[in-house]
Amino acid sequence: MMIASWVESANLAEGGFPLNNLPLGVCSAKDGPRRCCVALGDQVILMDVLDSAGLLPDAAKGLFTAGTWNAVIARGDGLWNQVRERLIALFRTEGLPDLREDTRLRAEALVPMADIALHMPFDVVEYTDFYAGRHHASNVGTMFRGPENALPPNWLHMPIGYNGRASSVVVSGRGVRRPWGQLKGKDQDAPIFAPSRRFDFELEMGAIVGPPSDGPVTVAEADDMIFGYVLLNDWSARDIQAWEYVPLGPFQAKATATTISPWIVTKAALEPFRCDAPARELPLLPHLRDVGPANYDIALEVALAPEGGAETTISRSNARELYYSPAQQLAHHTTCGCPMRSGDLLGSGTISGAERDSRGSLLELSWGGETPVELPGGGTRTFLEDGDTLTLRGYAQGDGYRIGFGDCAGQVLPALDDPYKRN
Amino acid sequence: MMIASWVESANLAEGGFPLNNLPLGVCSAKDGPRRCCVALGDQVILMDVLDSAGLLPDAAKGLFTAGTWNAVIARGDGLWNQVRERLIALFRTEGLPDLREDTRLRAEALVPMADIALHMPFDVVEYTDFYAGRHHASNVGTMFRGPENALPPNWLHMPIGYNGRASSVVVSGRGVRRPWGQLKGKDQDAPIFAPSRRFDFELEMGAIVGPPSDGPVTVAEADDMIFGYVLLNDWSARDIQAWEYVPLGPFQAKATATTISPWIVTKAALEPFRCDAPARELPLLPHLRDVGPANYDIALEVALAPEGGAETTISRSNARELYYSPAQQLAHHTTCGCPMRSGDLLGSGTISGAERDSRGSLLELSWGGETPVELPGGGTRTFLEDGDTLTLRGYAQGDGYRIGFGDCAGQVLPALDDPYKRN
Repeated sequence: MMIASWVESANLAEGGFPLNNLPLGVCSAKDGPRRCCVALGDQVILMDVLDSAGLLPDAAKGLFTAGTWNAVIARGDGLWNQVRERLIALFRTEGLPDLREDTRLRAEALVPMADIALHMPFDVVEYTDFYAGRHHASNVGTMFRGPENALPPNWLHMPIGYNGRASSVVVSGRGVRRPWGQLKGKDQDAPIFAPSRRFDFELEMGAIVGPPSDGPVTVAEADDMIFGYVLLNDWSARDIQAWEYVPLGPFQAKATATTISPWIVTKAALEPFRCDAPARELPLLPHLRDVGPANYDIALEVALAPEGGAETTISRSNARELYYSPAQQLAHHTTCGCPMRSGDLLGSGTISGAERDSRGSLLELSWGGETPVELPGGGTRTFLEDGDTLTLRGYAQGDGYRIGFGDCAGQVLPALDDPYKRN
Repeated sequence: MMIASWVESANLAEGGFPLNNLPLGVCSAKDGPRRCCVALGDQVILMDVLDSAGLLPDAAKGLFTAGTWNAVIARGDGLWNQVRERLIALFRTEGLPDLREDTRLRAEALVPMADIALHMPFDVVEYTDFYAGRHHASNVGTMFRGPENALPPNWLHMPIGYNGRASSVVVSGRGVRRPWGQLKGKDQDAPIFAPSRRFDFELEMGAIVGPPSDGPVTVAEADDMIFGYVLLNDWSARDIQAWEYVPLGPFQAKATATTISPWIVTKAALEPFRCDAPARELPLLPHLRDVGPANYDIALEVALAPEGGAETTISRSNARELYYSPAQQLAHHTTCGCPMRSGDLLGSGTISGAERDSRGSLLELSWGGETPVELPGGGTRTFLEDGDTLTLRGYAQGDGYRIGFGDCAGQVLPALDDPYKRN
């Protein structure tokens, strides 16, 4: 059920930011400092204003001044859920009067989303990218190794993943420069150094680690450790990847940029949308077994707009397709004793569905470039072209309301003429 | 030439910490705060004491109080070399009298190394591990793919590497717990979850990034960006690695721990020991080409001591064996536009020499477990056993002096009985 608010714009059925959601962002007015905020309808709530006015729980006092949510994330669900309950009480129709009836304070604490810029909602400490989507792994494996060997032998036994590059994670809206790299065609003797010709997106979810851990954690403990979720586009240079990835995995192919949505949707907001993982094709080892529904039913879509052109939705998928839940990914991450820290970001891997129009990358949509994607406005795509804006969107559909993430968008900027020429 | 000091212990020919070196560490007295210090002979210089006394350059004022060197590292060679020149002036025989003739200040600023504990000299921001040793890559490749396919096709064209896990980097002296993980024998249908049986070390150097970069940098620029070096042991669970690493590279096999030496040896100290890379077997692409000697002649050795037993030197190698210099590794790291940050750590990959007794891992020394290494005190090793202490040492040999790194040591602690049982 939607929790109705006296902020009218929060009550739109498809708005994405009802009082049930309350996702965490960081905003600034033009040239102003970065401030922790929470989305509600078409407004943002400035958290430091509410804190200074004494309206938030004492346990959270002073945590909203740093211009990043890391201090709150480190405290985990326990603290956030207290703050969330207070926000619901303050903003719900016929809730606490403190803010609703204080015109001056309301004007200070609520700012139209149209008037602010959004920044990274948290500092990414380390970034890991998994490969937990069954259809994506099969599709990519079929293209590269044939249908008989589509899945690597380890795939059904553990959520395989690799460490990505935290320094390359950017917030929605930042342009993404087409990378240079070593490329080698199958019929060429030696690689060349050139701009990528097969630059792609990947439709993923990102999970953010709250409290840290110092040794192996169970799946249930891992689920408790996750603070919230973002949409995540793991930009990928397929030609750089093909040449570099054996035997040490993707490196420069994935380090140009990873874009996340500007809003952290917390576990409390997503709780009604928990669902089971897909059926297990092989039994999992005990330490990775399911301990309850740990996936989420989140509708996902991908839109592509050529420069100056209309947007086309090129894929529709769902986060429930993940074979391994974020909690299983995190539990596997700790098996060797690897310490996890608050602010670590875990990408899920590409979330493709079973159908062609639910594939989560152009590599799969165009089947390695063989079957271009038609854009109704004219033109086709095998991989991304300069000027293309790629946008991920996602929402969980409740009874008369939606939990949204905001757009996760980036425009492909042309490669530098000479990457070693300084401006 | 050794720069003689009035701190007599600094003038020992094989001491490793003459005035020519001045490596950076972080120390504490028992229960005391962490403090930035510099090694000189058998003493450490407490930098905050010299700074408070007004003896260091004004440009460095206040940078030594954080208990980590990151603030100095971020400023790069330029600032450090000013500080270094001042330290040399203060400590050299017949140098500035300010400290030498102030008994009270000397007692405050100099502390015997025996009386302090050493900690991480800097906060590792992100950690990357390369694979830049030619003999190591050939040895491992021969074992896994046969002598004809020993080197991956990309190997002679770029320094391949993978992102490691910064949270797992620890300072010399910390015990390293044998990890659990998924293991699968070639003749088994499914993996088991068990403690690693093939736990290994890797003899590496680590390079620390000083000033950050935001786009591709040349090899010459990369060389300028590197602030200094440490010894690095990339502990590796070979059985976990064998099962997990296709197609995304090493992950949990390498995330239990990476041990670094406690002293950062700066580029200025190593400048006299620059040397050329090995002969190029194929021409490098222009952006990776050598632009002068960027390797270092640093003698390396590995010692193994069983619990309670005598230490045996099991390998002797040299950092000059690296096919790709640290500057080439860093330049490659930025080709796709990957931002590098101050405090990033780049492992070189295992530095094996051409001979059997110069191999930098037990995997190579025992040739995959086939030919155990004899320990003169009795016993053999194929891989590490519980209680073993593994120590890396390294020094550059000057005319009558050595530039040392201090021990890079860790003891293998037995695996937990049940990794999910909480204490």
